[in-house]
Amino acid sequence: MTITITAFEQSPDGGKGLARDTRVRWALEEVGRSYETRLVSLAAMKQPAHLALHPFGQIPTYEEGDLAIFETGAIVFHIAERHPGLLPPDENARARAIMWMFASLNTIEPPILDLTTASLVERDRSWARERLPLVEDRIRSRLGPLSSRLGDVDWLDGTFSAGDLLMVSVLLRLRASGLLDEFPNLAAYVCRGEARPAYQRAFEAQYAINCPAA
Amino acid sequence: MTITITAFEQSPDGGKGLARDTRVRWALEEVGRSYETRLVSLAAMKQPAHLALHPFGQIPTYEEGDLAIFETGAIVFHIAERHPGLLPPDENARARAIMWMFASLNTIEPPILDLTTASLVERDRSWARERLPLVEDRIRSRLGPLSSRLGDVDWLDGTFSAGDLLMVSVLLRLRASGLLDEFPNLAAYVCRGEARPAYQRAFEAQYAINCPAA
Repeated sequence: MTITITAFEQSPDGGKGLARDTRVRWALEEVGRSYETRLVSLAAMKQPAHLALHPFGQIPTYEEGDLAIFETGAIVFHIAERHPGLLPPDENARARAIMWMFASLNTIEPPILDLTTASLVERDRSWARERLPLVEDRIRSRLGPLSSRLGDVDWLDGTFSAGDLLMVSVLLRLRASGLLDEFPNLAAYVCRGEARPAYQRAFEAQYAINCPAA
Repeated sequence: MTITITAFEQSPDGGKGLARDTRVRWALEEVGRSYETRLVSLAAMKQPAHLALHPFGQIPTYEEGDLAIFETGAIVFHIAERHPGLLPPDENARARAIMWMFASLNTIEPPILDLTTASLVERDRSWARERLPLVEDRIRSRLGPLSSRLGDVDWLDGTFSAGDLLMVSVLLRLRASGLLDEFPNLAAYVCRGEARPAYQRAFEAQYAINCPAA
């Protein structure tokens, strides 16, 4: 059955791979599933046809036969559950991989999203400069324990899983801020994720859309 | 096998049910699983014994035999996957229930957490009053589409699922702000969740810890 995902016609990041379709592409590449992409303009994302698929007017969405879902974490989980390679077969290790999926999206990503709010959405407010360091400290308070837990191993729980895929994707958003470099083992962890051939293919696929002349 | 969860020795909300152990208690009550609770003080949460269970020094955690996990979403999913009652048997409906689990935690909860930041953590800043309406508007921009999608049905996808359990739990955090009342169908949805006998039992269990004399 054909898998169709949606992605930005023009990503706000200009092809840096931070749009969430990259996470879904990466998961599909890890398990070796081909897929089709339907590009959606910013205007079309707020129209009824797209809102029927994604009530919050965002990308990505995932369609396969009768199934249509949104929410990146759920899409990655759906792919991981149906193909070998992203969730370990051992029952407890599988539960821990799912734990890291939720941790990346609900514990690590919220303060990182707030950095976007502070540095972009609220940038023209008189207090933007005063608030930014508070936001950065809240991110550090999450990166510190994550760095300690990762230690000097390659992946969060032994072998690469959907938990690492999402955690690396979330941490990637921090690279431009310099915060990641304060935790060398996390910076190296992100590089290990990016070095995976499946990530490379996912990145190139979204880059080709945003920078077709490159 | 005995299930043991952790909870605050004294919850910061004084027993309003907003601490995340309530979500796990609710899930266990829905599926009829008994459990034990180990109470942890704020000081103990930052000590090595607890950090080994939960690297971010929070509650709840979940222990069952050889398995130890943290992250509320993952714990609720673990319970839902192993007992009937929280995920529908139909494969596509199950994927949509999981979609709503992730949506509640990664799309709806982050702006709601920011309200806590704005109204409590940053309350003494000179710009706190100016920022608050911005945060509230970002919450409304998520509640509006959610309200439209829910419409006049009881639950997000037909029958009550772990997706509703988490969505109701996340929305409950908004009650004191008055924002929920701007969307009457969401306010009624939250009331439907609270009216479930399993929620009542979960609420009472956490209340009894925080208000033992009541």
